[in-house]
Amino acid sequence: MTELDPARRSAVATALRSQRIETPSWAYGNSGTRFKVFAQEGVPRTPYEKIDDAAMVHALTGVAPSVAIHIPWDKADNYSELAQYAVDKGIRIGAINPNVFQEDDYRLGSVCNPNPGIRRKATDHLLECVEIGVATGSTLLSLWFADGTNYAGQDDISARQERLHEALAQAYARMPDGMRMLLEYKFFEPHFYTMDVPDWGTSFAHCVRLGEKAQVLVDTGHHAPGTNIEFLVAILLGQGKLGGFHFNSRNYADDDLMVGAADPFQLFRIMNEIVGTDSLRPEAGVAFMLDQCHNLEPKIPAMIRSVLNVQESTAKALLVDREALTHAQGSGDVLGAHAVLMDAFSTDVRPLLADVRQEMGVDPDPIAAYHRSGYQKRIEAERAGGSAMGWGA
Amino acid sequence: MTELDPARRSAVATALRSQRIETPSWAYGNSGTRFKVFAQEGVPRTPYEKIDDAAMVHALTGVAPSVAIHIPWDKADNYSELAQYAVDKGIRIGAINPNVFQEDDYRLGSVCNPNPGIRRKATDHLLECVEIGVATGSTLLSLWFADGTNYAGQDDISARQERLHEALAQAYARMPDGMRMLLEYKFFEPHFYTMDVPDWGTSFAHCVRLGEKAQVLVDTGHHAPGTNIEFLVAILLGQGKLGGFHFNSRNYADDDLMVGAADPFQLFRIMNEIVGTDSLRPEAGVAFMLDQCHNLEPKIPAMIRSVLNVQESTAKALLVDREALTHAQGSGDVLGAHAVLMDAFSTDVRPLLADVRQEMGVDPDPIAAYHRSGYQKRIEAERAGGSAMGWGA
Amino acid sequence: MTELDPARRSAVATALRSQRIETPSWAYGNSGTRFKVFAQEGVPRTPYEKIDDAAMVHALTGVAPSVAIHIPWDKADNYSELAQYAVDKGIRIGAINPNVFQEDDYRLGSVCNPNPGIRRKATDHLLECVEIGVATGSTLLSLWFADGTNYAGQDDISARQERLHEALAQAYARMPDGMRMLLEYKFFEPHFYTMDVPDWGTSFAHCVRLGEKAQVLVDTGHHAPGTNIEFLVAILLGQGKLGGFHFNSRNYADDDLMVGAADPFQLFRIMNEIVGTDSLRPEAGVAFMLDQCHNLEPKIPAMIRSVLNVQESTAKALLVDREALTHAQGSGDVLGAHAVLMDAFSTDVRPLLADVRQEMGVDPDPIAAYHRSGYQKRIEAERAGGSAMGWGA
Amino acid sequence: MTELDPARRSAVATALRSQRIETPSWAYGNSGTRFKVFAQEGVPRTPYEKIDDAAMVHALTGVAPSVAIHIPWDKADNYSELAQYAVDKGIRIGAINPNVFQEDDYRLGSVCNPNPGIRRKATDHLLECVEIGVATGSTLLSLWFADGTNYAGQDDISARQERLHEALAQAYARMPDGMRMLLEYKFFEPHFYTMDVPDWGTSFAHCVRLGEKAQVLVDTGHHAPGTNIEFLVAILLGQGKLGGFHFNSRNYADDDLMVGAADPFQLFRIMNEIVGTDSLRPEAGVAFMLDQCHNLEPKIPAMIRSVLNVQESTAKALLVDREALTHAQGSGDVLGAHAVLMDAFSTDVRPLLADVRQEMGVDPDPIAAYHRSGYQKRIEAERAGGSAMGWGA
Repeated sequence: MTELDPARRSAVATALRSQRIETPSWAYGNSGTRFKVFAQEGVPRTPYEKIDDAAMVHALTGVAPSVAIHIPWDKADNYSELAQYAVDKGIRIGAINPNVFQEDDYRLGSVCNPNPGIRRKATDHLLECVEIGVATGSTLLSLWFADGTNYAGQDDISARQERLHEALAQAYARMPDGMRMLLEYKFFEPHFYTMDVPDWGTSFAHCVRLGEKAQVLVDTGHHAPGTNIEFLVAILLGQGKLGGFHFNSRNYADDDLMVGAADPFQLFRIMNEIVGTDSLRPEAGVAFMLDQCHNLEPKIPAMIRSVLNVQESTAKALLVDREALTHAQGSGDVLGAHAVLMDAFSTDVRPLLADVRQEMGVDPDPIAAYHRSGYQKRIEAERAGGSAMGWGA
Repeated sequence: MTELDPARRSAVATALRSQRIETPSWAYGNSGTRFKVFAQEGVPRTPYEKIDDAAMVHALTGVAPSVAIHIPWDKADNYSELAQYAVDKGIRIGAINPNVFQEDDYRLGSVCNPNPGIRRKATDHLLECVEIGVATGSTLLSLWFADGTNYAGQDDISARQERLHEALAQAYARMPDGMRMLLEYKFFEPHFYTMDVPDWGTSFAHCVRLGEKAQVLVDTGHHAPGTNIEFLVAILLGQGKLGGFHFNSRNYADDDLMVGAADPFQLFRIMNEIVGTDSLRPEAGVAFMLDQCHNLEPKIPAMIRSVLNVQESTAKALLVDREALTHAQGSGDVLGAHAVLMDAFSTDVRPLLADVRQEMGVDPDPIAAYHRSGYQKRIEAERAGGSAMGWGA
Repeated sequence: MTELDPARRSAVATALRSQRIETPSWAYGNSGTRFKVFAQEGVPRTPYEKIDDAAMVHALTGVAPSVAIHIPWDKADNYSELAQYAVDKGIRIGAINPNVFQEDDYRLGSVCNPNPGIRRKATDHLLECVEIGVATGSTLLSLWFADGTNYAGQDDISARQERLHEALAQAYARMPDGMRMLLEYKFFEPHFYTMDVPDWGTSFAHCVRLGEKAQVLVDTGHHAPGTNIEFLVAILLGQGKLGGFHFNSRNYADDDLMVGAADPFQLFRIMNEIVGTDSLRPEAGVAFMLDQCHNLEPKIPAMIRSVLNVQESTAKALLVDREALTHAQGSGDVLGAHAVLMDAFSTDVRPLLADVRQEMGVDPDPIAAYHRSGYQKRIEAERAGGSAMGWGA
Repeated sequence: MTELDPARRSAVATALRSQRIETPSWAYGNSGTRFKVFAQEGVPRTPYEKIDDAAMVHALTGVAPSVAIHIPWDKADNYSELAQYAVDKGIRIGAINPNVFQEDDYRLGSVCNPNPGIRRKATDHLLECVEIGVATGSTLLSLWFADGTNYAGQDDISARQERLHEALAQAYARMPDGMRMLLEYKFFEPHFYTMDVPDWGTSFAHCVRLGEKAQVLVDTGHHAPGTNIEFLVAILLGQGKLGGFHFNSRNYADDDLMVGAADPFQLFRIMNEIVGTDSLRPEAGVAFMLDQCHNLEPKIPAMIRSVLNVQESTAKALLVDREALTHAQGSGDVLGAHAVLMDAFSTDVRPLLADVRQEMGVDPDPIAAYHRSGYQKRIEAERAGGSAMGWGA
């Protein structure tokens, strides 16, 4: 079993305290499947209330100091004010996520649409989001396109790629220094014959063409069945093209379940590639973001739980005895090398994390602390009127 | 190449003229993904208008004489009147589809819900649908349950099965003679850890337990990747448990694309099992139903196209030289047996079908006929006011 | 975190001490992929030497007291002697596995072959294996058929099912009281269009038709991508049709990796269904068997590791607080119920298992004990001459 | 239905006559699965006899004028002589395929092995194959690596990538002008945790790093379930990085069935991307190669059938009315654009191809011609002695 000497324990604890996990504003609102959105009580009615919830998650965990926003779901009259509101609450605005899929115009695509007028409109929204990034102090433009086709022959695959490049190039040119473009891919949904960016290879090819400020965004739920995600994470790290993650769990599709719920070993293996290349440090430039839908479960506890799951996987990855691992790998000891990894995974890191939390001044059990806090009852009472926010608004 | 002698040609044509394909009322309304429902013009505002559209599809194709309804989407004050309206339009009401997934009560399931009160409510709706079946003269109760769980441990898998059985048994007991229960299965969505009826085996086990009036419903889009659908069709036929189909196309999930659009060879192989066991005849008791969503494409032409696709696959299956096939199979001639099948598949059956349509008194090109008919313009004008129907209403 | 009171700890330890995991004789021989079989040193040259290795695994772990055999790979002149040899070594012969796929006759199938003479030959081998079961005192006839087709049309799906039933019925009729037939299914390989028993539903339907002595065998590597194995385990338990397991790990196909290596959480969820229905007890009649190929790693340590992995998952399943789980499930507490399960999974059970082993009189670290034992060096020296056994011999 | 005016018909026929499809020497030898290799009569015993068979396929089809070779399976004392033998038979040597997976040294990999000595040996074999390419007049070095790992932690993913690059760079540097390196990828098998080149993205990244003489090789059986192959073909064409194809069919894994047998519509869609970008012409530099295993079916007729299947798909792709397609796509006519494609696919092109063959001076029905030729009987008699070639020799 993994025993930690004081120096190692201190290094692990330091790494855990400095970890940064971004939560998404949209996960605090209502969500569902095409069959039904089950409304919950206490759901935010404004972007400001979403920030309140994100701030609460940070207050309890200590490692979730930013919140991603989605435009126009989080449209504000004054984005500087929105950003200041976040700061006042103890967090900040993270990635800016343009939305170019919820208007009737986008039926056949946004930046890949055969109609140049619609492409113009969609591209303008990307440019607007660059400006919102500037106004909010965000350094990340996080792009996911719902574009694709449902039928063979419906549109020209290659032509759509060129249209995509043109739009990306305009947004890229508009970005100020210090801003990065993260290009997400998705295997399928909402289109079922082609998605215009279906895999990491397509995203990678676009990012290479655009330049060094463009990087690939890995959503852990957006792959073909059986895809080895830690492998492509390693490849992208090696190419300097891993921009960040959208963490969540999937069993089948873009299930958007809580990260670590479906396959905690996979999450550990991903974090192991991160830790093994010293990419956990915030300055390494990999953004760790959650992107989930809490359709059945209460949203804030689910988000806290998700943050804890990432922490636990990270702690296990930090416990891997890299010297022993390297030695076993180098000597061709298949079972021995595997055992080094499994030894860390089998360790119960919850006591360690409870200690780290106390060192950080947060409750050792953030979920219990949430239930004790009265926050849920308060928002259910305070947010009784008005219109709960969801994906559509 | 397949050459038909007059006797064989006549038998094939007779089979094609007597084919019956049911269209679903809900496919005439608006539909979409969780990301967006793109509204179309001319979409029905009432169940009566859906019947109008279904009747139009039948008028043009001659082989779509019934329409499945979904309760409460097609709720009517008087179901006898609704049925009579269909008859007046030249068609009839087909399968009755209860809906127990679009109320907040059903967040944790309907007939499998841990709460007995909610199970009672859901079961009562099944019983109501049996009555609607009686009132409309339908002989098919078509059951799909959105029930399932999203997280390991969320509920007890076995207990949910028993709850399911109890509800099914009550509906089964209420069914009059001549009515059949078709139990559909689905691999995933809207739940992502378990579905309570995820595969044909689970449906089959329930149907065996219920009795001979319960049969399995195969939705061609509801399988794990790589599943050989014609194989399980053959198994179910052999067990006397194939109740019918929900036809559509899938590449990834429950994509609900037009049948025959994603893999026409698969559709042919399925129809080949049907024809090879003489199960195409209406009296064989296999219901051929479409279940699709036309998210991007115009709904009525898409439905016509789908009917034609099923017809074309059927025609090819009817062209298979079964004597030659049996001989090649029996003698272990792998390539020869395969070639017999492919010979039929490679044949262009459109001229044959055009002839058959003329013999039936319908236009040889139903899609062109639809475009010439002025129907689309008329409904776009007439249905301008009111609220278009969709999944939610 | 899970804390155990003494009574509970005692019950858990008792359950763990009485667990029985069967190892397969073929996993001690050489194996590989179609691309290459990498030979290892010290591999058995006779069935007797395989028994030696299986006995060593049992001596070190205390929970692997039987070994499955494969006929004709383990063909013996006198099966009573073979059985006695096992007993002398401290173990016994477990399941008898007929092999009807490694002769040229079986190119188009064994019991499903279109040629009746070949079906007779294959069926006779099944009958022979029943006799071997009697001679060795085995109570399990474990059937897997490589039968299938590669091309659409190659053979008649339904006819092959009937041929299969006829052969199974003959073997079933020959089985003495107390013997069970376990019918395994497999999604694909070695055939790629149809397998004659591709899924649990097909196996289940055959077992229902045969009678109560026929049950389904679940090989954890034989499913379509994304299949929820614990779900079908629960279904089969509910139907009294779960005969046993072939444990191994898969990421893609029938990878045959060490159980617990690819997805330890899945193995835990499966064991959780077993424990939750009190089916761990040997008298519950579920056979826990390994079926793996150690292509790259040394075979005996890999087998020990696999046994330990099953033990660890079992221990975690035994730690689940079932009262808390049932309460959370019944009250619709999605996150709470999930947390009860995850709490057990997150626990490090290795200290508990080390204690249990000491109570059983075996080394707390069986892998270290193996390396200290000198067994590997001894067999590498002793088995230097002769022909190492593998799949083909 | 597609009617061809004389000018268009002439262009289509010209394209079909100039199509070039390469057959693989190894498909004429015995092959199988890990479970069994079923030997066939008349199988070649030498590389020369494989060339004889490949020449027979070309003589009958007129469009298969080259044969790929695999080293050391096709090891010859004098490669110039081997090449001259092919020319004398009417064909030529095509791609050179190094084999670095069938020696015990390669258990943990070849060019990615942690042992530098084994990497050196493997790299030297690549260099040897460059020389063989020079000696045989081949312009294609076709690389597939069986390298990978079976267990998490077994080796360092990133380090293996660097080792791979080093080996590729040496082979690349050795290639003369006019030679291209095609780097194949494969989702899984023979390794089951990681493959070192598992997807097109990884191959693409390596090829970009190497330079313009390195291109991606697409094996149609090497993808994750559900992968849209025509999409990535379009992407690679757009990047100038599509080097060629290994054609075959798959339903589940690397099934290596006859191309066009599992999903003829997919093959058509792939060829449609080729034709739509004018990449069918030999000078476009896309190599169309078969890579199949005929485990059950007779090898030469299966190869002829495969060539015909590619031809039929190509003919259908040539029939697509591109003007109508472009117009429908540009105007957002989803059903119309799809219909243009399906119209071509539904056409029976066998009469057209029979005519084209007669114009080329070959039999309109090459399979019937083969059966009439007496070739099979002759090789079964002549090749009765000696040792049939297979994957291992």
